[in-house]
Amino acid sequence: MGATTAYALMLRALFREIILIDRDEALAEAEAMDISDAGVLARPTHVRSGNFADAASARIAVLTAGAATHGSESRLSVTARSADIVQSCIRDLVAAGFDGLLIVAANSVDLMAWVAKDVSGFPGHRVIGTGTLLDSSRLQQTIAARLNVAASSVDALMIGEHGDSSVAALSIARIGGVALESIEAGTRPNAADLAEEVRGAAYKIIEGKGYTSFGVATAIVRICEAIVRDEHAVVPVSTLLTGQYGITDLYLSLPCILGETGVERVLTPHLSQSETAALIASANMLRTAKHALDRGA
Amino acid sequence: MGATTAYALMLRALFREIILIDRDEALAEAEAMDISDAGVLARPTHVRSGNFADAASARIAVLTAGAATHGSESRLSVTARSADIVQSCIRDLVAAGFDGLLIVAANSVDLMAWVAKDVSGFPGHRVIGTGTLLDSSRLQQTIAARLNVAASSVDALMIGEHGDSSVAALSIARIGGVALESIEAGTRPNAADLAEEVRGAAYKIIEGKGYTSFGVATAIVRICEAIVRDEHAVVPVSTLLTGQYGITDLYLSLPCILGETGVERVLTPHLSQSETAALIASANMLRTAKHALDRGA
Amino acid sequence: MGATTAYALMLRALFREIILIDRDEALAEAEAMDISDAGVLARPTHVRSGNFADAASARIAVLTAGAATHGSESRLSVTARSADIVQSCIRDLVAAGFDGLLIVAANSVDLMAWVAKDVSGFPGHRVIGTGTLLDSSRLQQTIAARLNVAASSVDALMIGEHGDSSVAALSIARIGGVALESIEAGTRPNAADLAEEVRGAAYKIIEGKGYTSFGVATAIVRICEAIVRDEHAVVPVSTLLTGQYGITDLYLSLPCILGETGVERVLTPHLSQSETAALIASANMLRTAKHALDRGA
Amino acid sequence: MGATTAYALMLRALFREIILIDRDEALAEAEAMDISDAGVLARPTHVRSGNFADAASARIAVLTAGAATHGSESRLSVTARSADIVQSCIRDLVAAGFDGLLIVAANSVDLMAWVAKDVSGFPGHRVIGTGTLLDSSRLQQTIAARLNVAASSVDALMIGEHGDSSVAALSIARIGGVALESIEAGTRPNAADLAEEVRGAAYKIIEGKGYTSFGVATAIVRICEAIVRDEHAVVPVSTLLTGQYGITDLYLSLPCILGETGVERVLTPHLSQSETAALIASANMLRTAKHALDRGA
Repeated sequence: MGATTAYALMLRALFREIILIDRDEALAEAEAMDISDAGVLARPTHVRSGNFADAASARIAVLTAGAATHGSESRLSVTARSADIVQSCIRDLVAAGFDGLLIVAANSVDLMAWVAKDVSGFPGHRVIGTGTLLDSSRLQQTIAARLNVAASSVDALMIGEHGDSSVAALSIARIGGVALESIEAGTRPNAADLAEEVRGAAYKIIEGKGYTSFGVATAIVRICEAIVRDEHAVVPVSTLLTGQYGITDLYLSLPCILGETGVERVLTPHLSQSETAALIASANMLRTAKHALDRGA
Repeated sequence: MGATTAYALMLRALFREIILIDRDEALAEAEAMDISDAGVLARPTHVRSGNFADAASARIAVLTAGAATHGSESRLSVTARSADIVQSCIRDLVAAGFDGLLIVAANSVDLMAWVAKDVSGFPGHRVIGTGTLLDSSRLQQTIAARLNVAASSVDALMIGEHGDSSVAALSIARIGGVALESIEAGTRPNAADLAEEVRGAAYKIIEGKGYTSFGVATAIVRICEAIVRDEHAVVPVSTLLTGQYGITDLYLSLPCILGETGVERVLTPHLSQSETAALIASANMLRTAKHALDRGA
Repeated sequence: MGATTAYALMLRALFREIILIDRDEALAEAEAMDISDAGVLARPTHVRSGNFADAASARIAVLTAGAATHGSESRLSVTARSADIVQSCIRDLVAAGFDGLLIVAANSVDLMAWVAKDVSGFPGHRVIGTGTLLDSSRLQQTIAARLNVAASSVDALMIGEHGDSSVAALSIARIGGVALESIEAGTRPNAADLAEEVRGAAYKIIEGKGYTSFGVATAIVRICEAIVRDEHAVVPVSTLLTGQYGITDLYLSLPCILGETGVERVLTPHLSQSETAALIASANMLRTAKHALDRGA
Repeated sequence: MGATTAYALMLRALFREIILIDRDEALAEAEAMDISDAGVLARPTHVRSGNFADAASARIAVLTAGAATHGSESRLSVTARSADIVQSCIRDLVAAGFDGLLIVAANSVDLMAWVAKDVSGFPGHRVIGTGTLLDSSRLQQTIAARLNVAASSVDALMIGEHGDSSVAALSIARIGGVALESIEAGTRPNAADLAEEVRGAAYKIIEGKGYTSFGVATAIVRICEAIVRDEHAVVPVSTLLTGQYGITDLYLSLPCILGETGVERVLTPHLSQSETAALIASANMLRTAKHALDRGA
């Protein structure tokens, strides 16, 4: 996932230098060399392997390291093993003097983002989880495929946990300003089916190839781009909640405005009653998992 | 406007060949040469001047020719002069065997699109006016600037006439799924102010530089891209209405799904009562202007 | 390699549809789903898994399947195992009615391209091996890094076999029209060092990560782009020689002009005496390997 | 030319903010508004009109202002009028505190770059004239069209004055490493014809449309990109010579390595005897014109 992210970042020409860090230094160097070979197509980006000290002055650190997910293992169950890895990486990075933005892609991403914030001591707006950006993209594409519309023309959000309790906020989904409910009966997608399909996608990919890489790499590129270009773009990412929908002191995904300082503002769309209930249930699940993790640590 | 459009199309690498046609053949050739010099940055596109026969096998014809707008002259007042030019161009183009899609950017664009459809005998879905695509982009940017959000994250539409009676459909505007009305009072833009600001923009540009070029060129590129790539994207353009909101046999702008066959479907968002009334008033104005044009012709 | 190529092709927006074919259908479907998730950033491309019949009407088929390279095993030694796979794929593809261009990336690429041409019965210009495109890119980057110049400003070619006998044609290398020999002594790279460094890169990458993917994926994208856009661009690829430098009936890399019909013309730069000798030695090595393969088959 | 440059820079997403400065402030504001409307396609760039104080902290200032060229008037004859404008702009800019890089596109560009360097007091590497970048692009395209090769695959340079005495350095031109002289007789372009065709292009464009815009705008974008991305790319631009080919204290075009500090190094390709003589003649012409300008001032 890390190497694919670096490759996509290079093709997008967002940075002048990308440093790959891995416990397996020969692997990091091989990936950096392989990616550098892509220079035929891309504007020059220097890609090399390095250590935490090399990354000390970086503007953005992307954390893709985590315990591997096996088969249909739930995202939450790999938490404890991943938390150790995340803590160790963030400690080393901060000790080296890093003072930029953290993007966390390791799973369970909402908990790992919380761990990263906790260990780094950074303010919440500077620690961002990839969250449901990928799920939202899948939701857009699923709706788009059913209605034969471009995915980019579908405004639709997945919110809450990046995992089994995620919520498809279909009541606020729109296509060209038209609510999903107003599309004529024959073609209107069923809410439950959609959410199921989206949540099942990651499991299907992991079953087939053992891990996900291209989708999440692209999501990371999108977050980096919004930050680097100070876009103030609305992107659903995992962020520290501070009272939204009555939820506090937890990382989960809501539409956020992203700019060069990280999360500039968390938006709170007007959800249906059942969507709000599902979001709170998702938060409760995450809180339970967080407590379990805390007790374990 | 035509040359700038060709330049933007070349930088976007959408076509292999672009042919510039102008009564002033030396001008068309000079523009083609000047644009060809841009090859340093763009993927190869052959740009040359030519005549209607050269364009016979083209996939898309973009009509930017029309009578010039002077000072604060209303868009409708240049109609009669423009209609003659449009009729003559379309006749020559069709006589040469052209059988593709027509994009009309000449003003008054809704009437000129109707004239182009009438003269060509093409079905409505193959004749598209640039309509309120540019106005919608301005509305997005105006809202974005006031709220410090990326314009691309603002879902907002101008519909109806591309002109003084255009309608800002603010009741369906959204930012990250949040209705404009739900943004807190201090930062919420006033509907009337927004619409006024958007409608006034073209007049200000024309006062300052005598014509518009970059904005409309970019709008044309967007329409071409949705067609060429068969995107099924939702884009607000001027299209032949066939009963939407009770309006029929008129060109005006609504969100349309664009693909390789042109307008694949016209969407009818659920508007507020006052927006619907304003849309019908806009249609009535256009119908009156159309009758005036018919009688004059 | 195949999935990464599809991902890079999607980000480059070169095709409307990409079909992934693999003996492991679940893997192909998982990769297609993972790549489709990248739609956030890219213009719409439909990516799906399929079989040879689905690819029958494709314009370009990219063959990345081949026997895996292990450790420091030479490229030639995996030939026999790869040849069986290539023959089987091409037979099925042609049987399904495929009549487009073949791009061969399986190693040993020069021999596999020859096998693909032989089995398909296609004319030589329609069967292209990725050849030394990647090696040439590495050479450009190696020179660029030493002289602190952009790689894109270094005109330098690797020719001959994509393998241990490849030839760095440094006598014709130029930077801004300046021959490498004319750059002052202190900074001029040593020819033997350069060639060694370039030839060693693939081994280092394979040692570190087990295979190469990003570099060769990017090379394939470059070839596809030159074909799809009918660029007539000069690209070093493996092509059927018909007498150049006295070599005939062999695939090896020389600078070729690529357009929509494939290889339009093979260029024969004026090489130094030692480079010509090395090229002929490379051809002889390939001919020996080809005969060994023929006898084995 | 200035507005088209800003438009192309915006589409290329090179800068976060672009400020347009013109004596006619309403015109600058109208152009900024028109360009801003292009936000549909481009990544966010803030484009606005302003004054020299607004540009004080800019990284790059592009000077396109100059006396207009009329009909077939030679570039040198508009020098005196342009020099006054350039001096006034640079004085105001430097007085406002500007301390970045200067790109001069006003004609006669070699003399105007010299004037800008002189008035600003900046070191030579920070004052760059667009020079023969556009002429070189035309030469590449002219050769490419005759040989049916991609222009990007033609390595060819125009050097010396951007004007009637420019030199087509055909002895060092290459296509895929093949010297132009080695291409078979039937297709080899004639040197004198090529140079004539390239030099005549600007006159033809000015005759047809009164000025050039798209080509030079694209050249400026290329220079900005090489600087902003610190590419160390080789680009033919007008630079202060310090003894190259025996020429000193004059601005004229040679291939330069461009990076974030401006011109990092001037390359001196090995020219043929007649090319060297023509380059020195071009320099002598420029020196005479410079003296005439000095005496006039």
